[in-house]
Amino acid sequence: MKAVIYNGPHKVSVEDVTDATIEKPTDVLVRISTTNICGSDLHMYDGRTAFEKGGVFGHENLGQVIAVGAGVDRVKKNDWVCLPFNIGCGFCANCERGLTGYCLTCNPGNAGAAYGFAGMGPYRGGQAELLRVPYADFNCLVLPEDATEKEEDYVMLSDIFPTGWHATELAGLLAGESIAIYGAGPVGLMAAMSAMIKGASRVFVVDSHDDRLALAESLGATAIDMRKADPVEAILEHTDGLGTDRGSECVGYQCCDRNGHEVNNLTMNSVVASTKATGGIGVVGVFVAEDPKAKDELEKKGKMAFDFGALWFKGQQIRTGQANVKAYNRRLCELIRVGKAQPSRIISHRLTLDQAPEAYQHFHARDTGWTKVVLKPAA
Amino acid sequence: MKAVIYNGPHKVSVEDVTDATIEKPTDVLVRISTTNICGSDLHMYDGRTAFEKGGVFGHENLGQVIAVGAGVDRVKKNDWVCLPFNIGCGFCANCERGLTGYCLTCNPGNAGAAYGFAGMGPYRGGQAELLRVPYADFNCLVLPEDATEKEEDYVMLSDIFPTGWHATELAGLLAGESIAIYGAGPVGLMAAMSAMIKGASRVFVVDSHDDRLALAESLGATAIDMRKADPVEAILEHTDGLGTDRGSECVGYQCCDRNGHEVNNLTMNSVVASTKATGGIGVVGVFVAEDPKAKDELEKKGKMAFDFGALWFKGQQIRTGQANVKAYNRRLCELIRVGKAQPSRIISHRLTLDQAPEAYQHFHARDTGWTKVVLKPAA
Amino acid sequence: MKAVIYNGPHKVSVEDVTDATIEKPTDVLVRISTTNICGSDLHMYDGRTAFEKGGVFGHENLGQVIAVGAGVDRVKKNDWVCLPFNIGCGFCANCERGLTGYCLTCNPGNAGAAYGFAGMGPYRGGQAELLRVPYADFNCLVLPEDATEKEEDYVMLSDIFPTGWHATELAGLLAGESIAIYGAGPVGLMAAMSAMIKGASRVFVVDSHDDRLALAESLGATAIDMRKADPVEAILEHTDGLGTDRGSECVGYQCCDRNGHEVNNLTMNSVVASTKATGGIGVVGVFVAEDPKAKDELEKKGKMAFDFGALWFKGQQIRTGQANVKAYNRRLCELIRVGKAQPSRIISHRLTLDQAPEAYQHFHARDTGWTKVVLKPAA
Amino acid sequence: MKAVIYNGPHKVSVEDVTDATIEKPTDVLVRISTTNICGSDLHMYDGRTAFEKGGVFGHENLGQVIAVGAGVDRVKKNDWVCLPFNIGCGFCANCERGLTGYCLTCNPGNAGAAYGFAGMGPYRGGQAELLRVPYADFNCLVLPEDATEKEEDYVMLSDIFPTGWHATELAGLLAGESIAIYGAGPVGLMAAMSAMIKGASRVFVVDSHDDRLALAESLGATAIDMRKADPVEAILEHTDGLGTDRGSECVGYQCCDRNGHEVNNLTMNSVVASTKATGGIGVVGVFVAEDPKAKDELEKKGKMAFDFGALWFKGQQIRTGQANVKAYNRRLCELIRVGKAQPSRIISHRLTLDQAPEAYQHFHARDTGWTKVVLKPAA
Repeated sequence: MKAVIYNGPHKVSVEDVTDATIEKPTDVLVRISTTNICGSDLHMYDGRTAFEKGGVFGHENLGQVIAVGAGVDRVKKNDWVCLPFNIGCGFCANCERGLTGYCLTCNPGNAGAAYGFAGMGPYRGGQAELLRVPYADFNCLVLPEDATEKEEDYVMLSDIFPTGWHATELAGLLAGESIAIYGAGPVGLMAAMSAMIKGASRVFVVDSHDDRLALAESLGATAIDMRKADPVEAILEHTDGLGTDRGSECVGYQCCDRNGHEVNNLTMNSVVASTKATGGIGVVGVFVAEDPKAKDELEKKGKMAFDFGALWFKGQQIRTGQANVKAYNRRLCELIRVGKAQPSRIISHRLTLDQAPEAYQHFHARDTGWTKVVLKPAA
Repeated sequence: MKAVIYNGPHKVSVEDVTDATIEKPTDVLVRISTTNICGSDLHMYDGRTAFEKGGVFGHENLGQVIAVGAGVDRVKKNDWVCLPFNIGCGFCANCERGLTGYCLTCNPGNAGAAYGFAGMGPYRGGQAELLRVPYADFNCLVLPEDATEKEEDYVMLSDIFPTGWHATELAGLLAGESIAIYGAGPVGLMAAMSAMIKGASRVFVVDSHDDRLALAESLGATAIDMRKADPVEAILEHTDGLGTDRGSECVGYQCCDRNGHEVNNLTMNSVVASTKATGGIGVVGVFVAEDPKAKDELEKKGKMAFDFGALWFKGQQIRTGQANVKAYNRRLCELIRVGKAQPSRIISHRLTLDQAPEAYQHFHARDTGWTKVVLKPAA
Repeated sequence: MKAVIYNGPHKVSVEDVTDATIEKPTDVLVRISTTNICGSDLHMYDGRTAFEKGGVFGHENLGQVIAVGAGVDRVKKNDWVCLPFNIGCGFCANCERGLTGYCLTCNPGNAGAAYGFAGMGPYRGGQAELLRVPYADFNCLVLPEDATEKEEDYVMLSDIFPTGWHATELAGLLAGESIAIYGAGPVGLMAAMSAMIKGASRVFVVDSHDDRLALAESLGATAIDMRKADPVEAILEHTDGLGTDRGSECVGYQCCDRNGHEVNNLTMNSVVASTKATGGIGVVGVFVAEDPKAKDELEKKGKMAFDFGALWFKGQQIRTGQANVKAYNRRLCELIRVGKAQPSRIISHRLTLDQAPEAYQHFHARDTGWTKVVLKPAA
Repeated sequence: MKAVIYNGPHKVSVEDVTDATIEKPTDVLVRISTTNICGSDLHMYDGRTAFEKGGVFGHENLGQVIAVGAGVDRVKKNDWVCLPFNIGCGFCANCERGLTGYCLTCNPGNAGAAYGFAGMGPYRGGQAELLRVPYADFNCLVLPEDATEKEEDYVMLSDIFPTGWHATELAGLLAGESIAIYGAGPVGLMAAMSAMIKGASRVFVVDSHDDRLALAESLGATAIDMRKADPVEAILEHTDGLGTDRGSECVGYQCCDRNGHEVNNLTMNSVVASTKATGGIGVVGVFVAEDPKAKDELEKKGKMAFDFGALWFKGQQIRTGQANVKAYNRRLCELIRVGKAQPSRIISHRLTLDQAPEAYQHFHARDTGWTKVVLKPAA
């Protein structure tokens, strides 16, 4: 099968590799129809993680089941399925409470597994023609009848739509409340769309790219351009000096100031400052426990000069971590099916698998207009 | 009336001041019977806050109502009442949701008011013979018939029992779960007692003082002596390397390492490390938004070199802030009344108001055995 | 002042009565600008309650403050305010937890007080020129700058918008879930609007009146006409035989079958049947503890032949009761202010106070088109 | 293998039947060591259900794994396991949210499956030497090292301890609150023990049998003997006329009045009456959707003359249904392991499998002292 292979920092190629197969009775095999490039792929592409050369990228996958293990009862051959990026077993102490992003089984010694992801277990990604899906009855979201018709919406159920939704859940957003979202990348935009669906009264989105801010506005949010003014001041001004009810961090440790310099505590200290006392903050942007290649001394050790005093004095809550996709994907699927959510609106490029290398190059460079790239291995 | 007056760092005296009175129709006047010295009084005593000379200390107060304003309907003259340390209006956006520690009315421009507390509004404290209680119908906990008999238990409802309880609530503790509590001062001990009442499976308490660790053991907890071993390692060993389900920080920014040096990120980074992935952390120890007299550069600005990467990677939640006393005090009062909670067990000294200066001296020095001091203005 | 007076079954008149005044330091006096007739006024108008002759109706009130008691701190003269129909003290065990519909103070011996309502305390209603508001700092929702401009939206914050919202909260509705609402009267319509705002995937509304069903459709719901088919079967058909995730009862004990006969268990047994196993049911329609004038023997005693076996076997939850208006009114006010909610859309008639008698007559008769009547005492 | 066989009303025998075996790759086979007779077995024994002759009873099972299917990853041969009475698949819409008592897979067309239970699917029970466990990785609770030592405690994790716990969860019990539990059978006693562990301030247990009331007292509860006085009045007297914060129904549709006559609405109407306004009610006693052999006309149709008016007026919540055992069994297991829960305290008889017939006879007759019977198939 063909697959997108990592060959070291800023080098990916499409190569022939051994076919994915059924390895255990609880597996299914999926022919990938749509697979996205995610912002977190760029961390690995950038060489700042332990992702090994020769590995296959891709954790946002949708396709059709072509083979089913003997222990699989629910998923059937020919089902169209969307796969959560996190791989769960379904029976560990975390999975059984719905914390499928922190499975204790699939990546022994750690909490959490994923396809094609540094540190998340030995699973190849889905930027390929075929994908092996472990614990398939648990992990597959079987799609409704209009699966192929709305394929580009449904594929977003693998990661960014649930992750954006998670940002608002972790923040504790209630209908009628206001929220500030830091970052208008795909996840931040999905967070804004989620907040709108949930009936937020006001949604502010902070970024420094025109194309992204425009998309945020098109989703009904108020764009806060951090190049024009301090976003904290801008948000406080919009909220009578009190701050928003809720805040979400959708950027991660590589967040940059308005001059493009990486400042790892920028978004977190800003969100503490622009959120009201007693408010809730959700953090889905990736922060890492160590980052030896960072320039900042604290950042190397996974630390941050954090405004903890302000946080405590304001009595805020911070909830963090990757989305437990299965906690939301059925409901979000239903919103797509009935036409109340269209996450495909943010797609900027639809490419073949062979075009993956150039897509990585443009997406990594944040070239204008490269918002979200979808690959079609079967095309 | 006599009152405990702050005269600058490490100087308090008992002096005659103008009597507290009814100032508004919604006030009552209370003759103080029991009033405690709190660990947070020591921050002010130490001169590290903006508490003004001439101010009266005391936010843990119990007494009898001797006068009632014309707009007070519920509280009656002669009622025995315990006063939450936080003063709420009862009708602002925060109070009406039970967030009485973040009242928007009583300390205009800020969220939160208290008696005799730096930065918490113009309210004199209760280490005195009389106390004016604003919004009395809202703030007074009217005590049951055995008020005087169990006065030393009920006075703990003003602060440390609800604050310890809050530590376990913020951590999200469920019956059957394990919890590690950092700090065996009065609040940490109350957190341990709360966790036991709530049916925690295991309660670990970390400290470096023999008397406090012994008290923790007497409440049913497992003492972790940080002088003997790294507490994180000790807790991981007790929990098969996974960490506890929950963690609580009950120390604050002046936490010290085993050599007695102040290291403001010590307890927070430890609690992140000793709590399992997906676990919850409650922080009731005080952290401040700036601390110009601190030695550490980050600490001066209210910052901390925080292991945010580890926090995020583990998908943990941190909830912070002072206890909303009214959220718990009725239920905790009932536990005392029926004999299921005896917070007075940690009292080490019962003194007259005149003995306050020496009590401050000993308590501040952490002299062995000075666990919790109760003053009796009427004695 | 002029007021709408109850003179016995089906008899109301507009008469001059003694002016409302400030009676206690915590009161304010409001000049009523808009006051609605509510479906629950009709129960009293019908003579099926203990409402006394000579009493003043009206619990959905909005107006301007013209006098302020000495103990009132927050509300100012000239403020525009909307009054929750339930009157709370703000400091009892229920009010302090946000259960303001079950105040233990304002109607001694009972839980819950309201303006102009049978069994809800000695408070005159607001279908009058003036209204006394007790515990005004707690009870008044001070309206934003556009108060007079959006007066007909804001007045709905007194009751039916929060009550409709409550129906969805009690049902436990989450974004992406489906809900069936029994009853398309004003409260049912507000429940449908609330469910839409919260991101429900599908909203079914059951009724037997064309005008109401048309309004439900205009709000984005799917109308289920109980004259055409059994609503339970219709809903099961829409949901693959499983039933909706959530259900709401917005009719009450006087619910009628398709032939117009009162059958007090009709909606409750239907909602149990059309809600899925493990689903949640919210009940805001009024049921009474005794109803001596009912025809049915069980109903006389406040009982119902209820499908409890089906409820239990399906593992459902039922949550009941009147809305705690203050739990929602700030957030709903904000949704109106930013233009995301327009509850005035269901108003059918705007009349003067003098026209109240004919309004009662038409509304009670369910005359076509009489959906919601708003009275203007100042007009 | 030997098994307890149902031969029609009040007739059970121990017979040789075909051995249980591994049927699917996801099964394990367990040699039963301890298996209990449950109160709900008596409904079937009584002939009031559709349980078929020739079926094997037993849904409270513990034993050792002797064979493992090819698709089982977690459970190993020789593991000691306790099996939740409900059988879940782990991947349906209900199981993935923790609602394992309402599995949509294991009993197609229904929600919920169990071993040896009428209407709960084609699964033989465990009152036998061997038991087949479907979806074993999901369903088995692997016991800690002291499994055999505390076997009689751990076996209670299969049903009655989690079910009693569920009664308090459904009621919404918080530490410091009061609760009234109707029924002091094994489940009611477990509910009382659970409430004590969770820090309830007061626990009232209503029953009419001396032995059970004595056990309730021994667990720390206040016994309410319904033969001596109306339990509602007794509870109101204990609670200043307000009622308890929470209530639990642990009896079911065959509840009897003090004269031993079955009155199916007795406990439900009592618990509504003895619970305070705004209080929560949990119902784990079994109610059935139809009961053709009942004497009462409403009961035949699964209906009850329910005080719905009182329920609504008090704004109470009712949550119902069988326990989702897996939602609690890990935490309760830990409480047993550390010595904080000893559910075996209520066992009255330990018998061999061959003694099952006489055990059913005595237990069904409610003979004094026959509180809880444990069978030992391997003995």
